Amino acid sequence: MDGMKFCNQCGSQLEWRIPEGDNAHRHVCGECQHIHYLNPKVIVGCLPIWEGHKVLLCKRAIEPRYGAWTVPGGFMENGETVEQGTIRETVEEANATVELGGLHSVYSVPHIGQVFLFFLAELKNLDFYPGVESLEVRLFTEDEIPWEEVAFNSTRFALERFFGDLKNGGTDGTPHMGQFVRGL
Amino acid sequence: MDGMKFCNQCGSQLEWRIPEGDNAHRHVCGECQHIHYLNPKVIVGCLPIWEGHKVLLCKRAIEPRYGAWTVPGGFMENGETVEQGTIRETVEEANATVELGGLHSVYSVPHIGQVFLFFLAELKNLDFYPGVESLEVRLFTEDEIPWEEVAFNSTRFALERFFGDLKNGGTDGTPHMGQFVRGL
Repeated sequence: MDGMKFCNQCGSQLEWRIPEGDNAHRHVCGECQHIHYLNPKVIVGCLPIWEGHKVLLCKRAIEPRYGAWTVPGGFMENGETVEQGTIRETVEEANATVELGGLHSVYSVPHIGQVFLFFLAELKNLDFYPGVESLEVRLFTEDEIPWEEVAFNSTRFALERFFGDLKNGGTDGTPHMGQFVRGL
Repeated sequence: MDGMKFCNQCGSQLEWRIPEGDNAHRHVCGECQHIHYLNPKVIVGCLPIWEGHKVLLCKRAIEPRYGAWTVPGGFMENGETVEQGTIRETVEEANATVELGGLHSVYSVPHIGQVFLFFLAELKNLDFYPGVESLEVRLFTEDEIPWEEVAFNSTRFALERFFGDLKNGGTDGTPHMGQFVRGL
C-alpha cells in the first residue's frame, strides 16, 4: 500500500481491506465506504534518432537517478493522448523537435505500478537544449552510450533493442515487450 | 477536475490551483501542500481469436454500457504486467484460456484519461463462460458482430482493424494507434 491515509471524498480515515465482492486489498473509507483504487501510471517517451543511428539522451536533473541518462519521457497526464504526452515530455526535457514513428517498446514494472510506452522518433534538427529537468542533452552512438549511467531498466531495454535492431537491418514495426520483475 | 475534496495525507481540504513551477491545475492540500496528481488509467484487454476469424466478445453485466458487447478487458492493477493484467481480465470476464500474441492496438481517450492496450490472442478451447461482470460470452464472425451494440469506441476501433487486416492478409505486427478526441 502507499501513503494514503484519508478519504478524498469525506476526509475520514481509510482502512486497508478487501471490499465485498473483490479479491484484493483496497483503501476503503471507514465512514462513506468509498473505495480508492490505485492503478499503474503510464510513462511516455521516445527515442529521438538522428542520422539513423544516434539517439538523444537527457542527463537527469531530478530524482530518482539524478545525473543518470535516459530518453526524454515522463508521466502521461490526463487530457492527452499517448502521442501528445510523448511530444510534450520531449519538449519539456530536451526542447527537441521530433516526428513520432511507430511504438518501439512497452515495458512493465509491476512492483512500482508503472508501464513505459516508448516511440521511435525522428529528430528534426539539432536545436535541442536542456529543459529544467535535464542537466544536459546530447546525441550518442551505440559506442558512446554510458551504459553504467543509464537511469532505468526501461531505458536500457529500449536502447539495447534499438541498437540490436539496427544490426539486424532495422525494426520490423513490432514493438518490443518487456518487463522488470523484482527478484527475477 | 474529479471529485477529490480532501487530502489523502492529512485529511484537510484540497485546493484546485497551479502549483509553483508547474503549468497545470492540480489538487493541492491547503494544509500540508501535498500535490495529488491524477494520471490516465490503463485498460488492458485482448481479442481472443478462434479459427483465425472469430472473436470472443462479452456482453457487459455492469455499467457503463450494460448490455453492450466488448472484448474482455478492464483496468490494469498495480503489481501486474500488461500481459498478466490482460490474462486476468480475460479469465475474470469470460473464463477463457488464451495465449497472447502481439500488441494489437493502443487507443487513447484523453477526455476521460484512459489508454487502452489490446493484444491479439489465440483462444485455446471453447470452455469459456460468463464471469460475474458478463451476461453472456460468445464467438462472432465479422458478419455476426452487433455493431450497433458494441460498447466502446476503443472496442469498435480494435474490431474494425482486426477484420480489416484479415481482408488484407493479416496483421504485419505493427500495432494500430488510435484515439477518440471529443468534438472531432
